[in-house]
Amino acid sequence: MESAEQFTRYVPWSPAEKKAARRAFDQALERHLSAIIAEARRRMANVVDPSDLWELETYLSQSRKTIDRTYQYRYSVLLRVFSMLLRDGWLKEADLVGLQSDKIAEIKDGAEAFRRIFNDTGETPDES
Amino acid sequence: MESAEQFTRYVPWSPAEKKAARRAFDQALERHLSAIIAEARRRMANVVDPSDLWELETYLSQSRKTIDRTYQYRYSVLLRVFSMLLRDGWLKEADLVGLQSDKIAEIKDGAEAFRRIFNDTGETPDES
Repeated sequence: MESAEQFTRYVPWSPAEKKAARRAFDQALERHLSAIIAEARRRMANVVDPSDLWELETYLSQSRKTIDRTYQYRYSVLLRVFSMLLRDGWLKEADLVGLQSDKIAEIKDGAEAFRRIFNDTGETPDES
Repeated sequence: MESAEQFTRYVPWSPAEKKAARRAFDQALERHLSAIIAEARRRMANVVDPSDLWELETYLSQSRKTIDRTYQYRYSVLLRVFSMLLRDGWLKEADLVGLQSDKIAEIKDGAEAFRRIFNDTGETPDES
């Protein structure tokens, strides 16, 4: 798993961009959580025996860890976080409106790089 | 939490009693698991925000531990396990048919002793 920490660097964010970034971050988080809740509901509806229930427990436990690990709102790592979220489909390009064009370009380039490097490890909405 | 281990002693079980004991054990386990599944369904239906989902995760995790810890099918501790299950309501007196009367009496005495000693720590069907 890639770590956002290793890419830490200083990036200036204007107040307007911070507001847009927070909105984009929250939208991605809400989308991701909604997908997890929908998947948990689907699994719960299909519980036939205890093993199904314990698989749901494992799914929820892993989902919680993914959420905690992924959604770190720190400006020093935010471009990288956005790149990962864009790659995984939780963030849409349209959510980035309000950020400066160089930041948007960097986020998209980062997402593309993540796609190439971590081609078969990403969790995407389609897979969940 | 009381441990069944500390009460380990040799108890003779006839083949017919072993069969009856296995049936009683399975009935209690099925009842307990059904209650957990029903409670999980109730909680899932009431999930409004992520914290509700993580509370469901915690509930499932604790339930799995309780099941793993409680349901130990070993003849050396079975009377004690049955006493605990009888106290907690997962085992009914009617389930004990097929066991010798001295064993049934010991299980009931044990359940009563557990009720007195661990009066406010037991997980019961009514509380779950």
